[in-house]
Amino acid sequence: MVEQRKNNHEDQFDEEFLRQLLIDEDIDSFREHFLALHPYDQAQFYEKVGPDIRTTIYQFLSPQEMALIFEAIELEDEEYEQFLKEMDTSYGAEMLSYMYTDDAVDVLNELDEEHRESFLEMMDSETVEEINELLAYEEYTAGAIMTTEYVSILENSTVRSAMTVLRNEAPNAETIYYVFVVDDQHHLTGVISLRDLIISEEDTLIRDIMNDRVVNVKVTDDQEEVAQIMKDYNFLAIPVVNEQQEMQGIITVDDIIDVIDEEASDDYSKLAGVSDIDDIDGGPFKAATKRLPWLIMLLFLGMITASLMAQFEATLDKVALLALFIPLISGTSGNSGTQALAVAVRGIATGEIQEKSKIKMLFREIMTGLITGIVCGIVVVAIIFFWKHSLLIGLLVGAAICCSILVATIAGSFIPLLIHKLGVDPAVASGPFITTLNDVTSILIYLGLATTLLGQLS
Amino acid sequence: MVEQRKNNHEDQFDEEFLRQLLIDEDIDSFREHFLALHPYDQAQFYEKVGPDIRTTIYQFLSPQEMALIFEAIELEDEEYEQFLKEMDTSYGAEMLSYMYTDDAVDVLNELDEEHRESFLEMMDSETVEEINELLAYEEYTAGAIMTTEYVSILENSTVRSAMTVLRNEAPNAETIYYVFVVDDQHHLTGVISLRDLIISEEDTLIRDIMNDRVVNVKVTDDQEEVAQIMKDYNFLAIPVVNEQQEMQGIITVDDIIDVIDEEASDDYSKLAGVSDIDDIDGGPFKAATKRLPWLIMLLFLGMITASLMAQFEATLDKVALLALFIPLISGTSGNSGTQALAVAVRGIATGEIQEKSKIKMLFREIMTGLITGIVCGIVVVAIIFFWKHSLLIGLLVGAAICCSILVATIAGSFIPLLIHKLGVDPAVASGPFITTLNDVTSILIYLGLATTLLGQLS
Repeated sequence: MVEQRKNNHEDQFDEEFLRQLLIDEDIDSFREHFLALHPYDQAQFYEKVGPDIRTTIYQFLSPQEMALIFEAIELEDEEYEQFLKEMDTSYGAEMLSYMYTDDAVDVLNELDEEHRESFLEMMDSETVEEINELLAYEEYTAGAIMTTEYVSILENSTVRSAMTVLRNEAPNAETIYYVFVVDDQHHLTGVISLRDLIISEEDTLIRDIMNDRVVNVKVTDDQEEVAQIMKDYNFLAIPVVNEQQEMQGIITVDDIIDVIDEEASDDYSKLAGVSDIDDIDGGPFKAATKRLPWLIMLLFLGMITASLMAQFEATLDKVALLALFIPLISGTSGNSGTQALAVAVRGIATGEIQEKSKIKMLFREIMTGLITGIVCGIVVVAIIFFWKHSLLIGLLVGAAICCSILVATIAGSFIPLLIHKLGVDPAVASGPFITTLNDVTSILIYLGLATTLLGQLS
Repeated sequence: MVEQRKNNHEDQFDEEFLRQLLIDEDIDSFREHFLALHPYDQAQFYEKVGPDIRTTIYQFLSPQEMALIFEAIELEDEEYEQFLKEMDTSYGAEMLSYMYTDDAVDVLNELDEEHRESFLEMMDSETVEEINELLAYEEYTAGAIMTTEYVSILENSTVRSAMTVLRNEAPNAETIYYVFVVDDQHHLTGVISLRDLIISEEDTLIRDIMNDRVVNVKVTDDQEEVAQIMKDYNFLAIPVVNEQQEMQGIITVDDIIDVIDEEASDDYSKLAGVSDIDDIDGGPFKAATKRLPWLIMLLFLGMITASLMAQFEATLDKVALLALFIPLISGTSGNSGTQALAVAVRGIATGEIQEKSKIKMLFREIMTGLITGIVCGIVVVAIIFFWKHSLLIGLLVGAAICCSILVATIAGSFIPLLIHKLGVDPAVASGPFITTLNDVTSILIYLGLATTLLGQLS
């Protein structure tokens, strides 16, 4: 199964050639060609070949070389478990020790309790301690995504000694482009970039050239907030401190890119009503499993709509014409609700809404709903008047659309704000749910208005 | 109007204090406190104060200091024009000269022709030439977002001379953490990181330690593709070359974060049917202007649905019960269509779908549609049977839902793929449009089935 990558970094490596070297057990040629690749390309190859071939790879590469691959790899959750089961436990444990702590923790988080323990038992106590600390932080916090491999020095060091520390730490630290300055109690007091270090005199004291207004985050901060700060300030790394302002770790920009990507996908799948966007690689059964929960839940909600409509069966029976506009009204209300929802969810995600008073935001949405509602209402009255020559039906549908848009816009913005404030899982405010809610209200408004009006007229 | 930032980097600066210093025309204290801030915070302050106060800022800061602010600022498109109009043309031109070329080009792109020319006339010819080159690249390509301020050296230099070049370029280059290696004709031949430089012996030849498998992009490559590569390889910067493999510039990770964010918002607004997510800052009229085009277009589509339904008025007149399930059917079909759409759009955006054969993808969606359709169909038959005790209506609605889900799933995945293939603006495939299309088909299926069945029975 040779699949050519269609983008412009194809031909970075010859898959068949490498595979043949493994089959021929030509260890020297394989190592020569494979290790010249970027870890991302190594990971691509490693992921694609089957378990048999991977077994040969484990024999040909050291745990340290394998660690680089696992830092670059992007796997489905269950694949981590599967790939690690293929290795000897001691080989896997050694590989995990060589990985940056944050990446090792990401892998260990995907394993079941027992499997994880089997690895931790074989690792040295210092590494295990660091890993356990990170494992203890709540998911989606700065603590959970930070790494402990950073470079720190004392305020009263010189540029020369800082450069020596840097050279020694270079092979292990995740970034050496920022050096963090701490006092005796390991409190974060400043930061200096490698850029500044290499242009400074060797005898200069760090204290004199460091930036002491260092922006930092707390271990308990939400990862989205951290991403926002790094994006605003264009940092390559940001220090993470605990409540006592003691330095605990750093978060690097590559992890933040993953966070931004993840959160965007997350918002997106919420709007679309998929538990999470199913991977194109999964089969149809897997895809159906991810989509069905929503569909079936919404079916039940739809049944509620139907049973509410049943209250108006007499009205519908009298004027069948009314039924024609039901999809129009529920559709329009759904559309305007989704628009308002998108603005609110995006605003919460980017942090823009937090800054503004929520009351102001709601007022704006009410006004927006009124304006769009009135404009759409007038358009509808005009269309129906010219098409059906009925001002009465036109006014009825127009009024219903106007009210529905107003209600849907308010619901679309208010519900996510409310849910965000209550700290409830925002998935509840996802698109299809709000759309269905708006369906119900819009139809109730429409048929309610119709029944009243027809009652008046007959 | 003092607004406290609610996130944890509040208190980075005292807005009122700085403002007072400007009013008092206390230039020394203002410069002391203001210039100690991170450029992002400077930009926040600069953006918030009114035009009067900004006029004082222009007097107190040099164009070079102002350039840092403009590199960090994030403005609405029309604000660039407005802010630059506040400055003397010569001050503005000097500021633009001090900015990184890519950032200067971003600003100049927002100005009208005449205003742009007035600045370019006052800048030195070398800078103007660089700027004009970048302005010539098509929007959303690597050429348009790259910067020309990078560090390059020849293959046969030593580590020592490379470090000297780096120290000299440090104040101007956008990143000094990668040094790009070129031959006499300025062809890109390798790359070396500052990390590797500082741990190497000073007499080592660059050629011997550089990485000669340097991943690069072409000036004409799409920015999304560039973002994907940088994300995969965890690069901090990537070199950009022309067709002749000559080095033209670099793209840094902070620009890529903006691209990722922009593209995610873009996909998101397409799904939600807002021309682009309206800014929370805009008033309700602005918000309504952005939302109304879609709503009104969809109103007309909805009218088509209504007029198609009118063909079935006789059927609806005979069995008013049928109308009760219209929202249920159109809603479910809309929901499943949106789910399929989200998967397809995300797959196209992340490049995953390009790699796979599209036929395979479609086959998967057809199967997914069948499975979800059949399951939902059965659920509906069961509910209606127990609720209305009518197997006939249950089977009718169930069959309609099953068919609608299948059609909607196929439409949701096929339409974006088709549009992507045709190279048409994918906005056409946006959520509400597909939802409304699915509305029409699902109702036609339902009422068509009902009419046939009732015809058979009566």
